Parts: sequence; C-alpha cells; structure tokens
Amino acid sequence: MSDLGGVAVVGAGQIGTLVGQGLLGSRRVASVAVFDVDQEAARACLARGGAELLLERPEQALEAEVVVLALPLLRILDWLREFGPRVRAGSLLLDTGSAKESVVEAMAALVPAAAHALGGHPMAGSEGRGAAAAALGSLAGAPFVLSPVREDPPGMELGLRLVRALGARPVVLEAARHDRLVARTSHLPHLVAAALALVAEPPSHDLQAARDLAGSGYRGATRLAASDPRMVAEFAVANREQLGAALGELGRELSRLSAALAGGADPLALELARAGAARARLLEAV
Amino acid sequence: MSDLGGVAVVGAGQIGTLVGQGLLGSRRVASVAVFDVDQEAARACLARGGAELLLERPEQALEAEVVVLALPLLRILDWLREFGPRVRAGSLLLDTGSAKESVVEAMAALVPAAAHALGGHPMAGSEGRGAAAAALGSLAGAPFVLSPVREDPPGMELGLRLVRALGARPVVLEAARHDRLVARTSHLPHLVAAALALVAEPPSHDLQAARDLAGSGYRGATRLAASDPRMVAEFAVANREQLGAALGELGRELSRLSAALAGGADPLALELARAGAARARLLEAV
Repeated sequence: MSDLGGVAVVGAGQIGTLVGQGLLGSRRVASVAVFDVDQEAARACLARGGAELLLERPEQALEAEVVVLALPLLRILDWLREFGPRVRAGSLLLDTGSAKESVVEAMAALVPAAAHALGGHPMAGSEGRGAAAAALGSLAGAPFVLSPVREDPPGMELGLRLVRALGARPVVLEAARHDRLVARTSHLPHLVAAALALVAEPPSHDLQAARDLAGSGYRGATRLAASDPRMVAEFAVANREQLGAALGELGRELSRLSAALAGGADPLALELARAGAARARLLEAV
Repeated sequence: MSDLGGVAVVGAGQIGTLVGQGLLGSRRVASVAVFDVDQEAARACLARGGAELLLERPEQALEAEVVVLALPLLRILDWLREFGPRVRAGSLLLDTGSAKESVVEAMAALVPAAAHALGGHPMAGSEGRGAAAAALGSLAGAPFVLSPVREDPPGMELGLRLVRALGARPVVLEAARHDRLVARTSHLPHLVAAALALVAEPPSHDLQAARDLAGSGYRGATRLAASDPRMVAEFAVANREQLGAALGELGRELSRLSAALAGGADPLALELARAGAARARLLEAV
C-alpha cells in the first residue's frame, strides 16, 4: 500500500527526520525524499532512515504528492512566500511549526485552492537538535494538531490519513485556539526557563558553589533553555501576541506569589497547593 | 565500627529516611532511631530501613550522640526553640533544611556552646513525599552542604564524618552564601513552576485541548509545582529576603526577553543563546 504517494520532507532536523522515519515505517507512502539547504543535515537524516532520497533543489519538493515543511517557523513562512503559489493541485502541503495562525494565514493567501493545505504541529521533539535527536523519540502515540486552512474536507481527510500513518493521534484545532493554548503550555515555559538560567548565573567566584547547589530541580526547570535558540526565537516571534499576553499573566501570578510570600507560609502554601492541583489536572494526574 | 554513636532522626519524611538508610548502611553508627509526630510516617520510615527504633517522645532524641533534624523549615526552628537549649554537651546537632541562615542563627542563639551544631543541606530529594519517595533516591554522591554555626573545628570534623559515612560529598558553605545561591538555583524555580502551572490552567472548555498540547516541556518546566506545598512555603519564607531579590532579578530578565521578543527573532535568539550557555556552564556541560 502506498496510498499517500510520494512524500517530500523539507527540513532534515529532528521533527523532519521523525516524520520521515514514521512514514517509511508505515509503508503507506511510495517514497520519502528530503531537502535541506544544509546538505550534511540532509545526509544525516538519510543515514537515520528519515528518507530514502536526497533532493538537490528545493523546487523538487513540489513534485511530491505530500510536502511536509519541517522548518523553523520563519523559514516556513519564507518557503510559503517562495513556493506556496506553485504547490500542485491535489497535493497535500503540511507544516510542523509550533505556532499555527501565521502559517495558516500564509497558506490561505498563497497556496492555490486546488491544492490541500493544512497547519500541523506534532507534540513531540525535545531540546535535542538534528537528525541524531530523532533517535530518542517517535511520533507514535503523540498528539498531532491539524489546523484547517480553508473549508476542504478531502484535504483534512488526507491530513488525518497521514497523521494516522505516523501512529500519531490527530487533534483538529483551529489555529488561533492552538496558539493561545500553546503560548501558555510551551512557548512561555521556554522563555521562563531562559530567564531562570540567566538569574541563576553566578559570579565567577561562586561558580563552583553554585554547581554544587544546582540539583535536579534546577536542571529540570531550565531544561527548555537548552533548546535551539533560533527555533525558539522563531516560534516565539510568530506567536508574539499570545506569548505577550501569557507573559503578562505570568507577571500577575508571580506578584500574587510574592504577596503570599510576604504574608507567610500559610498563604503561600495555599497558592502553591492551587498550582499543584492545576498541574495535576492538566496532566490528568488527578 | 560505630564511631558516630547513636543517631536520632527527627522527621520521617523523604530526607530523614534517606539519612537513616545511608547511616545504617554505612555501619558507622551504633543505631538509628526516628521520631515523628506522625506515627504512621515514622513506621513507614522503619519499614523502609530508615531506622531500627521508633522514639515515642520528642525529647528522647536528645539522648543520641547525633541528632538530625529532617523537618520542614519552620518546624526546625520550632524544635530549636523548644529543645535547642537541651542539646547535650559533645553531641552533634545537624539539620537538613534547604535554607540555612535562619537555622544557623537560631542554633547559635539556642544550642549550648558545649554541643556541636551545624547547618546541613543535602542536595537530594525529589518532589515525592514521605518515606516511600526515599526508595527512588540516595544521598550517595550528592553534595551535602555544611554551614558552620560557630568556630568549632571538632564539630565540623564530626559533621564531615557523618556526611562521608552517607557517601555524600561535603560542601562547606557559609549560610548566607548558601541562601543567596540556593534562592536562585532552587527556591525561585519552585515559585516559577507554580506560576507557570497557574498561567497554563485552561478554562474548562479548553481542558481537553490543553491536555493534548501539554507535552514533556510543560511537564518538566512545572515538575517542581508538584512538591509538597507546605515544605516549599516554609523554605521560601525562611529565605524570604534572598528569594525576594531573586524574584526581582527574574522580573528584569523577563522584561529583557520581552523587549527582545518585540525586537524580533534575531535579538531574542541572542538572549536565548546566552541563557543556554549560562545553563551549560552551571551544569558543567561546556
């Protein structure tokens, strides 16, 4: 079976490699080719089983039945400006960026209506980079957001088949709603991890003592600060409005905690218990 | 060999149980007894090998050669007010609280100079609670801060022997310096995790979508919000001054990141790279 046809993955990083690996493993595609401006990255993706073919020119991706844009957010928008109008009738164009509204708007404006375009966001990946980081993960079982670009039931049907071929769980979510939620569950935590890492940076005479004191709590709380800065900067900027609102909400919560701290252990413990309950509810741990 | 004599652990939670397990395993103590106002917690500690004996009255702990206070911070201070003046000459009193200046000051004021008193802080433990959580960890290899209370070389020598018996790595650190650093590497991350959990709490009609979107990034960034709220509130209040300063610094870093976000992906990526480098330096990953 190869009901999805030929696939071109544009971008040979962690997510592009995971998508390619998953689709090749599914046997639901005729072939997977990869393009990356960084030829070494593309070869690493090939070596990791993320693709069988290496494309040499970006426009070759347009020949595939399915084009997956697994690029940093602003490069997805660049790609759409350059190649969007040339996406073939009947083929599926999907991205994997972690902000959806700007992508979906660009797709609506630039991709011909005879093609099928969808915003996509697989909830996978780690702070690791490149094809090598794909070895540690899989899209199987992960939620995979699909955001409609226009009224296009056959396009959504194609997207659902692709997501299911990956073994992922499709979550159809309007782009604006996705961006509002993900600003708070992902984009804000990235900025906060960076801020924590900057606050904890000790003067050099305290470096060894700070190393002794920085335990698993520090490591976990700042893990997202180890992400690719360019990737994070691009999705943050693409989701600037919602992220700005979330930063404002964070400031207000920190002020409440600060006031509770000034009030003593009882009011602070109450606020912390409320936070723990909110986390447990979101993680379905209650 | 039982060169440390009889040990009384006051507080049968995760850290008290780890200390008891470690000392019993070292064969460097004559015995380990535990006291907890919560008799069920004390029995759980016994069942986990954290002690061999259960003390029924708190003052029985004063009969031991070594008394380890493994209590929430404010209860350490309560204990010192009630029992500090009765600590026996020649015996060692050590706590395990994660803020040191208030403890060390109380010890200096309340514990007779003929006894040996030390502030202590093992860099171990997790967001888990009680003796059961001790099963997952060990103090072996962990840094264990010792903060001097007064000029007392034999007391410090005793403390070093106890820490080494646990297989932990002694780090002698003045209390104020400890508190300044730990406010930034541990106490602030606890408050920030709570604030993130509160910001990410969705309205009920978005709960399922938010669950789909909350991945390993959210889980890791908010893990500390699952800690015992009472424990966190007590060390936060005990280190209120330094933690307040750290909250101010965090606000300034978030403002810088917010300004960079407004400036676009280039300035934001620069700030994020700086944060990643700071983290790597602190974790010796560079």
